[in-house]
Amino acid sequence: MLISDIRVTPVAFRDPPLLNAAGVHQPWALRTIVEVRTDDGLSGLGETYGDLAHLTKVRAAARRLAGIDVHHHHALYAAVAQTIGGDVVTDRHGLTGVATREKTLDRVFSPFEVACLDIRGKALGRPVCDLLGGPVRDRVPYSAYLFYKWAAHPGEPADEFGAALDADGLIAQARMFVEEYGFRSIKLKGGVFPPDVEVDAVLALREAFPDAALRIDPNGAWSVPTSIDVGRKLAGTIDYLEDPTLGLAAMAEVAARVPMPLATNMCVVTFEHLPAAIRDGAVGVLLSDHHYWGGLVRSTQLARLCATFGLRLSMHSNSHLGISLAAMTHLAAAVPNLAHACDTHTPWQARQDVVKPGALRFADGAVPVPSGPGLGVELDRDALEAMHEQYLACGVTERDDTSYMRTFQPDFSPVRPRW
Amino acid sequence: MLISDIRVTPVAFRDPPLLNAAGVHQPWALRTIVEVRTDDGLSGLGETYGDLAHLTKVRAAARRLAGIDVHHHHALYAAVAQTIGGDVVTDRHGLTGVATREKTLDRVFSPFEVACLDIRGKALGRPVCDLLGGPVRDRVPYSAYLFYKWAAHPGEPADEFGAALDADGLIAQARMFVEEYGFRSIKLKGGVFPPDVEVDAVLALREAFPDAALRIDPNGAWSVPTSIDVGRKLAGTIDYLEDPTLGLAAMAEVAARVPMPLATNMCVVTFEHLPAAIRDGAVGVLLSDHHYWGGLVRSTQLARLCATFGLRLSMHSNSHLGISLAAMTHLAAAVPNLAHACDTHTPWQARQDVVKPGALRFADGAVPVPSGPGLGVELDRDALEAMHEQYLACGVTERDDTSYMRTFQPDFSPVRPRW
Ligand SMILES: [Mg+2]
Ligand SMILES: [Mg+2]
Repeated sequence: MLISDIRVTPVAFRDPPLLNAAGVHQPWALRTIVEVRTDDGLSGLGETYGDLAHLTKVRAAARRLAGIDVHHHHALYAAVAQTIGGDVVTDRHGLTGVATREKTLDRVFSPFEVACLDIRGKALGRPVCDLLGGPVRDRVPYSAYLFYKWAAHPGEPADEFGAALDADGLIAQARMFVEEYGFRSIKLKGGVFPPDVEVDAVLALREAFPDAALRIDPNGAWSVPTSIDVGRKLAGTIDYLEDPTLGLAAMAEVAARVPMPLATNMCVVTFEHLPAAIRDGAVGVLLSDHHYWGGLVRSTQLARLCATFGLRLSMHSNSHLGISLAAMTHLAAAVPNLAHACDTHTPWQARQDVVKPGALRFADGAVPVPSGPGLGVELDRDALEAMHEQYLACGVTERDDTSYMRTFQPDFSPVRPRW
Repeated sequence: MLISDIRVTPVAFRDPPLLNAAGVHQPWALRTIVEVRTDDGLSGLGETYGDLAHLTKVRAAARRLAGIDVHHHHALYAAVAQTIGGDVVTDRHGLTGVATREKTLDRVFSPFEVACLDIRGKALGRPVCDLLGGPVRDRVPYSAYLFYKWAAHPGEPADEFGAALDADGLIAQARMFVEEYGFRSIKLKGGVFPPDVEVDAVLALREAFPDAALRIDPNGAWSVPTSIDVGRKLAGTIDYLEDPTLGLAAMAEVAARVPMPLATNMCVVTFEHLPAAIRDGAVGVLLSDHHYWGGLVRSTQLARLCATFGLRLSMHSNSHLGISLAAMTHLAAAVPNLAHACDTHTPWQARQDVVKPGALRFADGAVPVPSGPGLGVELDRDALEAMHEQYLACGVTERDDTSYMRTFQPDFSPVRPRW
């Protein structure tokens, strides 16, 4: 089962104007689809970010992996490492935290690893979770992911989701998602309005959804004192406070003075960040993400590490398609110490996908683990082609929430902490 | 691939009178051989300790695992956990460190996990290392494991290894093993003679083998001041000082005041011990052992944790047979951050084995990774039967170096620290 051929296809899909501390989502979200084929005719899928600098690295790596056995993850990693050298790819939006050489490598490696696991699962006639220790649950809980948002991208007709610029708008958004998907956890992307406004919005959500698990994530928009203030006001209301402020030192300061654990997908984003984070007690919940933690097997290793050190574990998400959702679901199914419902942007993708419908569905706020072999999803070649055409036509090559926001609010500042 | 049947067979094989801080090896070493069969006719092998209390737990677990898929390691672990309940099995000899409930469970789980990986490898036509990330090396270096020893068990004719009761005896023993196996690392089991005698022996080994990597392991026989004294006298001579003293606190005190890293297979023996050990800087080298770290996959997770925290990694051994040597070799082949030659007792087993000859060999101090599917070793049913008969006849049901030593030296004390 040697890798014979790899296709790397950037795609674009429509994305609503979701607001965050960095600005607002552009009309197009980008992803890269990786198809790995083997000399014996099997193929597997991976999905990763679509930003051009990252895509360029993925393409460079793809050219160097032919001849490697799909079981040989270490060899694959070493080959990807060679193509990365000492380079560091930085995201313009900064929403997945600090960029390092290790993170650059782990992000490029991830889609190839997932595709190899997909192939190995297909060869065995087994779901990918069976290659990760087997399932400990047959359905993976996800959370409703609320965003403040405009009714439409400026100049376009209103999208199907409506505006959400205050607590009532968020509650309506939450109702829509809870009714359609059955979510029992609700996350609010904050960092958009002054903290007291967002605190009130969370309290309003608590009143509207008395039984839901709640959380808020301002992507580091708050200072240490503001974070502590918010944390105290939301005591008993949220399960965890996600990245209230930037950097391990500031997070540790906040963690010591708020009643709930802090969660992060920004200050601990590779294994190299864990020793200091654990030493300083900066984080109580790690939001893992196989897209930057080096794939699924490494994520199971991360899970063991979290269990060892008493870190709770859940899962972060960026805008993504069905290959990622399938991979996240298989991983979460095989991680005993998953402690919270995972994040997903799936509802915002509004049924656009590169995989054929049917394999992935939400029921009662959870995705049943796809039972088909491998990831259990099949590429929709027509959709892939159409979304690739969209990529070529849309003109977006990099996620840049700030520049897009400044088209409408020239004085918008993404500086954090903002409050 | 559902488990349909498990056979658990205790075996005994001749063991020379090797001296250590707990006493002396009995004439018979015990192991338990686990054969797992599946409903589709595959079978796999595991090997673990033979002490009766542990064997009883392994037998109890074996009765509860039918119907579990060999890919479902988490389910297997949960089923074993049920049979263990809250029980803690303690070794009489104490040479593998503190006993806990987690260690009891991980030790019982391990041979079943290895057997399932053997089956999965056979089903795929792949070596077990390919299920652990693939090989990063095709041969695994081991070290010569020197013991002070008597010429024979009292009342028996001299064994083939000869006596080693001083530096000259150890040098002769080392020459014998280095010539036959090509070892480039040499470990001395200490804790037998006063520390200065053993320091002089290590210095004599350094002179006799100027290029060998050296180490000494007194199994916690020394006090903190003695450990510091030995560490300073062996500065520049040994790569690491293994378990000079007992307990994390004492180890941390020594670690801060000797020039070389401390290694352990006694004070950090399950994941639960790692946070304090890392926090206190007690250990620089972790000697992992899949027999008590819950099998091969968990050992790869341990390896990632060690890499994350800058702990060097190598491998501990107790008296064992070829199934264990094969498993250790596959694991070490798939661990990128293996930093030292692994320990093995193989030379002392004097060609006694439950596996057919040919699959495992030493060349230049290393074992080439068996290339056959699974572990790559085949059970020798005649040998198994003969060694089981030996088990039934020998009367030993528990490793107890101290009681055996007291047959000859009634006043022998295993109290540690002794010096
Ligand atoms: Mg976040
Ligand atoms: Mg030891």
